[in-house]
Amino acid sequence: MTDYRRLRVALLGAGSVGSQVADLLLRHGDELADRAGASLELAGIAVRDVDASRDVDLPRELFTTDAETLIVGSDIVIELMGGLEPAQTYLLQAINSGADVVTANKALLATHGPEIFDAADQVGASVYYEAAAAGAIPIIRPLRDSLAGDRVQRIMGIVNGTTNYILDRMDAEGAEFADVLADAQALGYAEADPTADVEGYDAAQKAAILASLAFHTSVPLDAVHREGITHIDKAMMDAARHAGFVIKLLAVCERLADADTAGESISVRVYPALVPREHPLASVHGANNAVFVQAEAAGDLMFYGAGAGGVQTASAVLGDVVSAARRHIAGGVGVGESTRANLPVVPIGHVVTRYQVTLEVSDLPGVLATVAGILSDGKVSIATVEQTVSEDLSTAPAVPGERDETSTPVAHLVIGTHRAREQDLSETVERLAASDVVERVVSVLRVEGD
Amino acid sequence: MTDYRRLRVALLGAGSVGSQVADLLLRHGDELADRAGASLELAGIAVRDVDASRDVDLPRELFTTDAETLIVGSDIVIELMGGLEPAQTYLLQAINSGADVVTANKALLATHGPEIFDAADQVGASVYYEAAAAGAIPIIRPLRDSLAGDRVQRIMGIVNGTTNYILDRMDAEGAEFADVLADAQALGYAEADPTADVEGYDAAQKAAILASLAFHTSVPLDAVHREGITHIDKAMMDAARHAGFVIKLLAVCERLADADTAGESISVRVYPALVPREHPLASVHGANNAVFVQAEAAGDLMFYGAGAGGVQTASAVLGDVVSAARRHIAGGVGVGESTRANLPVVPIGHVVTRYQVTLEVSDLPGVLATVAGILSDGKVSIATVEQTVSEDLSTAPAVPGERDETSTPVAHLVIGTHRAREQDLSETVERLAASDVVERVVSVLRVEGD
Repeated sequence: MTDYRRLRVALLGAGSVGSQVADLLLRHGDELADRAGASLELAGIAVRDVDASRDVDLPRELFTTDAETLIVGSDIVIELMGGLEPAQTYLLQAINSGADVVTANKALLATHGPEIFDAADQVGASVYYEAAAAGAIPIIRPLRDSLAGDRVQRIMGIVNGTTNYILDRMDAEGAEFADVLADAQALGYAEADPTADVEGYDAAQKAAILASLAFHTSVPLDAVHREGITHIDKAMMDAARHAGFVIKLLAVCERLADADTAGESISVRVYPALVPREHPLASVHGANNAVFVQAEAAGDLMFYGAGAGGVQTASAVLGDVVSAARRHIAGGVGVGESTRANLPVVPIGHVVTRYQVTLEVSDLPGVLATVAGILSDGKVSIATVEQTVSEDLSTAPAVPGERDETSTPVAHLVIGTHRAREQDLSETVERLAASDVVERVVSVLRVEGD
Repeated sequence: MTDYRRLRVALLGAGSVGSQVADLLLRHGDELADRAGASLELAGIAVRDVDASRDVDLPRELFTTDAETLIVGSDIVIELMGGLEPAQTYLLQAINSGADVVTANKALLATHGPEIFDAADQVGASVYYEAAAAGAIPIIRPLRDSLAGDRVQRIMGIVNGTTNYILDRMDAEGAEFADVLADAQALGYAEADPTADVEGYDAAQKAAILASLAFHTSVPLDAVHREGITHIDKAMMDAARHAGFVIKLLAVCERLADADTAGESISVRVYPALVPREHPLASVHGANNAVFVQAEAAGDLMFYGAGAGGVQTASAVLGDVVSAARRHIAGGVGVGESTRANLPVVPIGHVVTRYQVTLEVSDLPGVLATVAGILSDGKVSIATVEQTVSEDLSTAPAVPGERDETSTPVAHLVIGTHRAREQDLSETVERLAASDVVERVVSVLRVEGD
């Protein structure tokens, strides 16, 4: 075997990803050394509890609770603890002691990325984070390097496996959200507290990271508009299917020519949207992820794969470790993040897209004229209208006394709009909700990818 | 504007890709400088004929016929001339004069890659070639870096847009190869001499590059088994559709546990294969490309996009230029190719896959038993058999005298095999062809992705 330079690798965290990373580092050491041009010596694994049970059997002598001592003298530090602290303190300690760092910590990067990248720039270290955006799917290097000479116009990503699993099953089985969620929890696809996934927090962190890379701009997490999927019900799914769509939780990162600023700006948003069935993203099933990228020169690209999972994510982490080792051997300083474009992030109100608005209306003559008038006044142009008798009401048994015998019948009005400004649309929906002829606003969904 | 260090960029070639690269470099100079951290000064464009017409209007003073003088003193040299010579001489001159080089020249890399990479290693230069494998699709960095910590098991790529366009139209329209090829030539999807595409030479070059990266092994072009699509006809397409498949020209790069060598080996091959309709590669339409990667830890990944086109390929070239500029600024030496795995490439005879063999046989009792016996003797196990009366013969008008009135009727036998060794299969097919009961071997197709 070639006598390679030895690099000291410290691992922080031995959860589902960390234990797989340690296992692969130990089992494939010779092969990884050949690829990296350096021997990767796992110096230790810092954990809170040395005796906790792990997914993989690992030599007990590698474990320590003393992360700070482990970091000292390491060439590469892999942070897989998750959470903001003490992860950030350790990462900064590693950077300042001259190590290159590898992390899968999307919460930390989305929240404190600029501080971490600045610290690395100061000392010429590199920060690698392929596992932080879409699990095992290589998307960081394509955005950061391969597309660095192009202009990304738009990214639409399915970047959260749990919500895609839930929505996909709701679509395929005609099931209700709560039932599928409970099942997903039982099967391990969703956590006991599913908030981070179903409310879109996880996807918003990834959206901030993807948008920062795609638009060469630091995108703070609080600039990402976020909506979850807990309000999506069977009726909305059925209506979407009927209209040729599927509902997906999307992270949308978009370059805008903003009329207000007379310059370019970007929008970064996470919400459930109607995606046409023939769009490549509509075929992303189960817990898989996919990132659809539209670039000025390259055209349409799609990256598809497993979005989560211990061993899958470990693949992305180890790719970063090999890259870090190669850079150590090659010399030179780390290439910092490219954020000099500094594009402003516009609020959700500036976004322009198509909408599908479903209203429950009195089934009386003149209702459509009234509704159309409100939309027109609100600068929202109608592309399609479909009127259906509300199934719920028409199929309900007539219970005497429950409804006034003289009440007007009720119908559903499904309105597809042309591209409209979100602020105009939402003000218009408020006026519709307040109108005499509208019983209830059933749903408002954006259409993406059409 | 920030005062960046200036890097001198030389461009060799101004064809469909080169002219777009020059145009984007000139138009997006400030933006690219912000991303690269260096100002990219296009010093000149070397061409054979300064006065030739170009796809894009470019300043006449940039053109020169003297490539050698242009290269001197350049920091980054972009080679987009194509062909082996003088491209190789200029690339080596650039490397030896201290430049980093960017190339989209798949023929050159597949043929003389090792010499070029060695030359770069000697002087610490880098060779970038994202545009050489699948046009605008970022696949080089994912294989070279993102998956460097994983073990790629298998790649199946649709890496030639022309043949995918032809096969996709044959499938969709039930058209014959020659008709679609003529139309593709008229529309500019195929060249006047389509040999490089339809005979699989272009795909074989890309397969050699992808396999070298995926398996960390120098794969010489002549180790790639290559078959084209000129023999694919409407009847084969119809039969494939009937059986739930579509025919695609695939570049397959596979890691094998080779019983003969008691170690690992690889197979690299290009041929038209039956792909199940539900496989993601079956949905790649028109001239698009896609690379499906199966890795031990990461699982299934797919990369999709435009495989060719001047401006699309220019996107990949410019990404490389920005990467080269960043490395120049960061210092250090180039990271060489990872080829230390040195896995042997096995000949096609060692490949194990499923096959679909279509025979024209005499429609007599005992024929199936005879055919099954020959397969069994040849160590080829049958998974499915379907017998159909040959359409051509049954619908042909009865022309007296053209066929012997007493001749045996003829049927088609479609045999799906279990996984078999190619050598066993081909020897068995020879014996079938020589058998009395077999009139004709209609087709032999491998099944991939099932």
